[in-house]
Parts: sequence; structure tokens; C-alpha cells
Amino acid sequence: MVRSKNKQMQDIMQQGGPQSAVIGLGSMGLGMARSLLQAMPVVGFDRDVAAVERFIADGGRGAASVMEAAQGASILVLVVVNAAQTEAVLFGEAGTQGAAAQLAKGGVIISCATMAPDDARRLASRCAEHGLHYLDAPISGGAARAASGELTVMASGTPDAFAAAQSALDAMAKTVYRLGDEAGIGASFKIVNQLLAGVHIAAACEAITLAKRLGLDLEKVYEVITAAAGNSWMFENRIPHVLKGDYRPASAVDIFTKDLGIVADIGRSTKFPTPIAASALQMFLMTSAAGMGRDDDSSVARLIAQIAGLDLPGQAKT
Amino acid sequence: MVRSKNKQMQDIMQQGGPQSAVIGLGSMGLGMARSLLQAMPVVGFDRDVAAVERFIADGGRGAASVMEAAQGASILVLVVVNAAQTEAVLFGEAGTQGAAAQLAKGGVIISCATMAPDDARRLASRCAEHGLHYLDAPISGGAARAASGELTVMASGTPDAFAAAQSALDAMAKTVYRLGDEAGIGASFKIVNQLLAGVHIAAACEAITLAKRLGLDLEKVYEVITAAAGNSWMFENRIPHVLKGDYRPASAVDIFTKDLGIVADIGRSTKFPTPIAASALQMFLMTSAAGMGRDDDSSVARLIAQIAGLDLPGQAKT
Repeated sequence: MVRSKNKQMQDIMQQGGPQSAVIGLGSMGLGMARSLLQAMPVVGFDRDVAAVERFIADGGRGAASVMEAAQGASILVLVVVNAAQTEAVLFGEAGTQGAAAQLAKGGVIISCATMAPDDARRLASRCAEHGLHYLDAPISGGAARAASGELTVMASGTPDAFAAAQSALDAMAKTVYRLGDEAGIGASFKIVNQLLAGVHIAAACEAITLAKRLGLDLEKVYEVITAAAGNSWMFENRIPHVLKGDYRPASAVDIFTKDLGIVADIGRSTKFPTPIAASALQMFLMTSAAGMGRDDDSSVARLIAQIAGLDLPGQAKT
Repeated sequence: MVRSKNKQMQDIMQQGGPQSAVIGLGSMGLGMARSLLQAMPVVGFDRDVAAVERFIADGGRGAASVMEAAQGASILVLVVVNAAQTEAVLFGEAGTQGAAAQLAKGGVIISCATMAPDDARRLASRCAEHGLHYLDAPISGGAARAASGELTVMASGTPDAFAAAQSALDAMAKTVYRLGDEAGIGASFKIVNQLLAGVHIAAACEAITLAKRLGLDLEKVYEVITAAAGNSWMFENRIPHVLKGDYRPASAVDIFTKDLGIVADIGRSTKFPTPIAASALQMFLMTSAAGMGRDDDSSVARLIAQIAGLDLPGQAKT
């Protein structure tokens, strides 16, 4: 097995095209790694060994560590949770080395985690010190589009960073917005999107439970609202989970405690008030505190229903 | 002039079809009266004489009072601001008579104001005592669709009320939802829609001003967000006003201090928490308090920009 993997690696090295690594094989990263595999060799790593096994089953190559995955790669795709994890993967923790030291000179980091613009700028600067390009490249579109190579990427970075990342972006994304020549701009766009997305989910959950309180036919509410001025992408996408009582995580509550937390951090550090986002953050925090942090983000409706004693589909009696 | 009007009225009476009256010739009511005029004779009334003159210029007939407008009509369309105005038109104020006493027996009231479900039920009950049908019929779609006869109506009422209102609904609306057999259901649907619409406007204004604070290209933000998961009908519709700095009222701030106020009232009376809508209501109240109550509801962005010292298009320097 080891021999066969080394043999594979030698074959790949000899092909001369870009070598890539994907760190983080969760619901988004695994799909992206699969899409990337159609275009170039990919080595995947995740702290969860089962995730690596799934990627190997799909025909990818797995690595036992970040260092091994990054070894000699010219494209490193980071699909981890936040800025801290991104920094730890790139530059190590507690004095250890990170992936940055392993990459081919002139390689590019495609950094997909949602983070504050200042974090993206700092990471780009540290990468430049290592002779590496950094593409600030938050993603949008969900797991299904990740798997089909149809993500939206809100990207910013130097022209060299875009050029180095081009082949990988082509394989993973349907739409790549080129938003500016420096890191931090992509992160800013993503934060604005997440503010709206989080508020719209919380508002959708508040509205559908109020509709239940008023005794309305919820299927009819969905039909009417999605055709009316009260509609949002999130209302249309998430309320079916509530109507089915299916809270398996398409995207988890704690994604929004994190992302609206970043909005709150930015608001405080730039002295900018975000009262609506702050209310929505509290609703996600309540839902997480009530034990639903890893459930679907539409669980905010379940929380409100529990509080108000409403009998939504799939509602656990409390 | 009076003679000619009386002659017209006689002609109309002799035609034998439904006679209608529209009370409230604002941006919605005037368009609806015009649409209705394609299908049947219409007498219009508004407390603003200039509005009545505009309707006469369009070929309608004007009245000098509610009583005169309602005289002998079999269909009464009420496009006033709230439940209190609706009740005053129907049943008079301070001991005076209202329109209900003037309508043809078996006539129908098409009641379009946004109001609490309890108010709609009470009004329907009072109408029944007068031998009149009441259609709880809040509208959605804006002034342009009112003028083109393409409104959406969220209606509930008895089958007899729907039957009596049918010809008028056909003339004014593209979509009529039949939501139930009693008054209050239409009002409830509208309230759920307004909760979402109001939150989405306030969130859109918060997001676009945060984007400005982060130094982003706002036209690009509009392009990216409207294609992403953060989109809402209101973001797409209202943010162009902010980008142009055009705060002439397509729909005014004080519509939402009113409608989110109804949401707040319902929340308290039914013991149902609506934290996101409550935050949005405060933003509209702040915007109204700052003197922009009659300006476009996207003025929430202007308020935030003034507070945070941001230079939005058309921003008055403070």
C-alpha cells in the first residue's frame, strides 16, 4: 500500500502539471476535493480519518498529516473552519512547522474559511514572506454545489495569486468574482453575505413560528411568502426543513454563531452598530445553548416552538 | 358639472352591473381604482381633494364624502391606512353614520389595510350585522402593480364574500389567494409577510452600510449579493434606492413603524417573542424620529450612514 502510494506520487510528480492538496474534508471540502480531482492530482487531509477514507474511496489520495499533504504541492486549498485553523495549518502551532514550509515555491493558498478582513490580510502578508501567493477566496453555495464543481467564490488577491489558482478555481467553481487586488476584500464580501444570510434564517424561523401561533396552514404560508415581497433565498431554502421537521445539518447552527460572531467582532472593532445581526446572533446562541448547535440552522424555529409550546412537525415535546 | 355627474350616475345605475366605490386614493388606491374602472363604474373618495381630482382626470367619478361615494354601491374597496380608519369609514366616528349604511344590501367590503387579525374579525362581524359581506383582503405588490391591475391579494372570507367581490378582484389583481373561510386569516398572512419584509429592509440597510464601512464597491456588493444566498426580495428591490441616493417614497418608513408595530402588538397580546422584528422596528422608529418617516423605507441606510459618518450617495452631510 505504501509502495503503491509512493509509486502514484512519483507518477504525479512526473506529469509536471499542478499538484494540489485540500486540507479539510468536511461537507464542503470533500466535494471540492472531488471536483478538483477531475482536473489534477489531489492529496487530501482531515483530522477525521474517516473523512480521509471517504476521499480515498472516491479515488483521491489521502495523507496522514498536513505536512505530508502539502509536500511539493503548488496549490493548497484550505477549507477549515476559521482564521485560527487556517493559520495553524499554514504556519504550525506551538513552534511546529506548517504547510507553508512544504509547498512548492511560488505556490498559491486558496483560503476558503470565513474570517475577518484583518485576518485575511495578515495571513496574506505571512504567506508573502514565504514566497507564496494567497488568494482570499471565501465560498458560497452549499455542499451539493461543492460536489458538482459549481461553487461561487468571492475572491481577492494579486493577479499572480489568481493566475496560480486559476486551474483549481475552474475545477471547483461555476462563478469566481474577482473583487480586488488584495486580500481582505473577498473576506469582507463574505461577511456582508453572512450577515444577511444569518438574519434571514433567524427571521424566517421567527415568521414561520408566528404563523403557527396564528393558526395558519404552514404549507400555504410557504407558498404565499415565496411568491411575495417577504421572500428571501434563505426563507425559500430553509423553511422546507422546518415543514418536514428535518433538522439534520445541511448547515449547522454553530456556523452562524461563528459567522455572526465575526460580524459582531468587526462591528465593535470598527465602531459600527449592527443591531439586527446582533439579535440574530443571540437567537443562534440560544439555539446552540439549548443543545442544537450541530443541528441544521433552521433549528432556531424549533427553539422558538419549544419556548412557545407550539407543535411544529418533528417537534420534540418538552 | 353637477348635472352632468348626476346624469352619469343615472346612466350607471341603469346599467344594472355592480357599482363600486374606492375609499383611499393614495399610491395604491388610485392605481386600484384605475384598474377597477376598466371593469365597472367607480366612484372614488379621498380626504385629499387633489387625489380625487387626479382620479377624475383619469376618467373616474369623484365624491365629496365617504357617504356620497358609497351611496348604492355593491362593492366598497377600502385602501386606507389601518384598522381604525377602516372602522371609521365603515361605521362613522363620534355618532355619525358611515359607509355601511349607504351600501346596497348584500354588498361586499374589500378591506385592504394591514391590520391585526382580531381587528379583521371584529370588522367582519360588524359588517355581518349590517347584512354586508366582508372580505379580509390585504394587498401586496406596490404602486406599479396596483396601476396595472396585477396585485397579489391575500384574501379570506365567506364564499359569499368571495363571490360578491370576484369581478372587482379580477380587475385589480393578478393573484388572489383564497386562504380561508373567515376574516382574520388574510390579515395573518399579511402580517407574517410584513414581519419578513420589514426585517429584510432593515437588514439590507445594515449590510450595505457595513459594506461601505469596509470600503467595498457597493455596486459590486449589489451584484454579488443578489446572486448569492444572502439575497432577499427586499434587498434586490430597495438597495438600488440607496445606491442612487434616491429616497423619494416608493413605500415610506412609517408604513413599517406601523406594520412592525402591529407585529409587536400581536406578539405581546399572544405572548409570542419576536426579537428580530423588534430590532427592525426600532431601526424604523429611529429613522422616523430623525425626520425621515415619510421618506422611502430604505432611509434606514441613510440613518446608519449619518450615525457612522459614512458618505453614501446622496447623503446629507451632518
